[in-house]
Amino acid sequence: MSSIIHRVQQQLASSPFEALLLSSPSNITYVTNLSLFSTHERDAFFLITHTRSYLFTHALYIEEVKKQVQGYTVIEITREKPISLLIKDVLKTHTLRVLAFEETSLTVAEYLSLKKDLAPYRLTPSQGFIQTLRMTKSKSEIHALQKAITLGDDTFSMILHKIKPGISEQEVAFEMEYYIKKQGAEVSFPTIVAFGPNASVPHHQVGRKKVKNHDGILIDFGIKFNNYCSDMTRTVCLGNPTDEFKKMYDTVYISQQKSIDLVFAGQEARKVDQGAREYILSQNFPTIPHSLGHGVGIDVHEMPRLSPKSRDILENNMAFTIEPGIYIPAVAGIRIEDIIVLEKNTVDILTHAPKYLITL
Amino acid sequence: MSSIIHRVQQQLASSPFEALLLSSPSNITYVTNLSLFSTHERDAFFLITHTRSYLFTHALYIEEVKKQVQGYTVIEITREKPISLLIKDVLKTHTLRVLAFEETSLTVAEYLSLKKDLAPYRLTPSQGFIQTLRMTKSKSEIHALQKAITLGDDTFSMILHKIKPGISEQEVAFEMEYYIKKQGAEVSFPTIVAFGPNASVPHHQVGRKKVKNHDGILIDFGIKFNNYCSDMTRTVCLGNPTDEFKKMYDTVYISQQKSIDLVFAGQEARKVDQGAREYILSQNFPTIPHSLGHGVGIDVHEMPRLSPKSRDILENNMAFTIEPGIYIPAVAGIRIEDIIVLEKNTVDILTHAPKYLITL
Repeated sequence: MSSIIHRVQQQLASSPFEALLLSSPSNITYVTNLSLFSTHERDAFFLITHTRSYLFTHALYIEEVKKQVQGYTVIEITREKPISLLIKDVLKTHTLRVLAFEETSLTVAEYLSLKKDLAPYRLTPSQGFIQTLRMTKSKSEIHALQKAITLGDDTFSMILHKIKPGISEQEVAFEMEYYIKKQGAEVSFPTIVAFGPNASVPHHQVGRKKVKNHDGILIDFGIKFNNYCSDMTRTVCLGNPTDEFKKMYDTVYISQQKSIDLVFAGQEARKVDQGAREYILSQNFPTIPHSLGHGVGIDVHEMPRLSPKSRDILENNMAFTIEPGIYIPAVAGIRIEDIIVLEKNTVDILTHAPKYLITL
Repeated sequence: MSSIIHRVQQQLASSPFEALLLSSPSNITYVTNLSLFSTHERDAFFLITHTRSYLFTHALYIEEVKKQVQGYTVIEITREKPISLLIKDVLKTHTLRVLAFEETSLTVAEYLSLKKDLAPYRLTPSQGFIQTLRMTKSKSEIHALQKAITLGDDTFSMILHKIKPGISEQEVAFEMEYYIKKQGAEVSFPTIVAFGPNASVPHHQVGRKKVKNHDGILIDFGIKFNNYCSDMTRTVCLGNPTDEFKKMYDTVYISQQKSIDLVFAGQEARKVDQGAREYILSQNFPTIPHSLGHGVGIDVHEMPRLSPKSRDILENNMAFTIEPGIYIPAVAGIRIEDIIVLEKNTVDILTHAPKYLITL
């Protein structure tokens, strides 16, 4: 994937920036394909000039990085040569003066410290440079996404056979995660399994509740496989659904289709959100208490945003979720979530698990 | 745990700050005991004045938060009332002018946006206010830590019975994680299982490698239970160790004891790091390529830092790891990690798993 570095450099050439300092772990994964670095610590920085690129990291990671290095120079951060000195050396070598940093990744404390230590070199916000690039996916990225999503479909199909009266939310989540790990993948966020009224909390945390007849079962989970994330939600029913549940389900199902029908290259993301939202309201259900969808790739949540206030425009090669839901406190919750990709102005639904109301 | 809010307010009274805006998810967990909020999104803010406190969050979390609220007011963030307006309302009510923010949590982009929207109210860095408080643990926090650590000991004891020739690193990690989840806990970071030479990479990612006779087996894992984290490392051997391995093991074992002996209230953290480091060097092994240890609590890694450059001073009621290691590339790696707590100037080792070299 060092073609990605090339792509970044091409964009850099037509930008106001001389060089870019990446600090976001997922942006570093994007350009290096490495997934070593923690999201909680600052384990690495990546510096891209118009012609060269450099990965800075600690001794802890050097051995592993060198096994996988492709198209950039690896430089070790040490006590004697901290990151600011190493960056200064590179700026000096390339006779650069200004370095664009990631304002959505560096904390205020990191920025102030770097700014002080880099003087007289200056820092300027990159204005989401890499995030914007990551919105449109390459063929190989879409291929990687499809693999993660297909593994999600398989996991869903597997778990339907395991759900029997009396199984708990936790047990369902365990079974799914065990299956996912056996495939050499990871969960991309804590699996949500919500029975009956629990599903009315959109981000319910799994508990010991056991499923009983006529319960709705909401399952929202994601897989990370070869650095790319899936994200899907299905709501099924143990035994026959109530009439109310059936009506809610059909409304969510149709609302999702209404939104998908609004997707085309050049469309405003907020209009797609509006499609499902207005249909749900028109059926006298409460509005969706979250966004309709979000981009997905190396992060489970990335740009574009499909929400009432989004200013994003949908373009070809964007991949994003569409996930309307209806939540009636203490009664039930239903959400259906697929990932779609817009290719050559055609909508391709990458999630293939069935969407009609499944009763177990 | 709303006694924690009280503790924060007491400290606030003797600080230069009128009010504190928390954005760090783990600091919000600290004051509320809630663990709902993602570390990837900004799901919540918490504002503490000298007399009152407020949790701001989205509709998605309101229902769940209201079930658990204790000692603070819950305010919903909506499209019409975004966070900056809500904060302004509180500042107005309390006739405050300056709000201390978390400079190690807010990104530059978040800070700039908040600063603009809050004017004429001003923001000032809190200088790690809550992190500093969190360094010293209350009795109930140490109790919670001990519970997580004991569950870690149990997990280690369980896995020793499962390791047989031919088992893979992944399988060992799966078994451990499955066991941990069955106890209603989570892993606090991806479990490290490294066989033979793989252990020479301190942060090795588990793979399909199978264990064979005379292999060293390094296991580094953490548990999160009721919001508190454990963190332990043991290195065992399948069958008899080589003489070289035995010598490395004994050196790490003794180096850890050297460091533990240096722990007392008022001691410089870097001196404790130095103890193990110098002993390992004196035995002609390479220096530890990481810090000797770190505080542990709601985060796996928190203050104090035990490293050559640390300026932290160890005090009573601090809990931290001591984890020296020797890593010989392509040969072997050994690390032993315990969590200790300093109480009434006595060192208490909370990790109870055996530390002599276990051969399976």
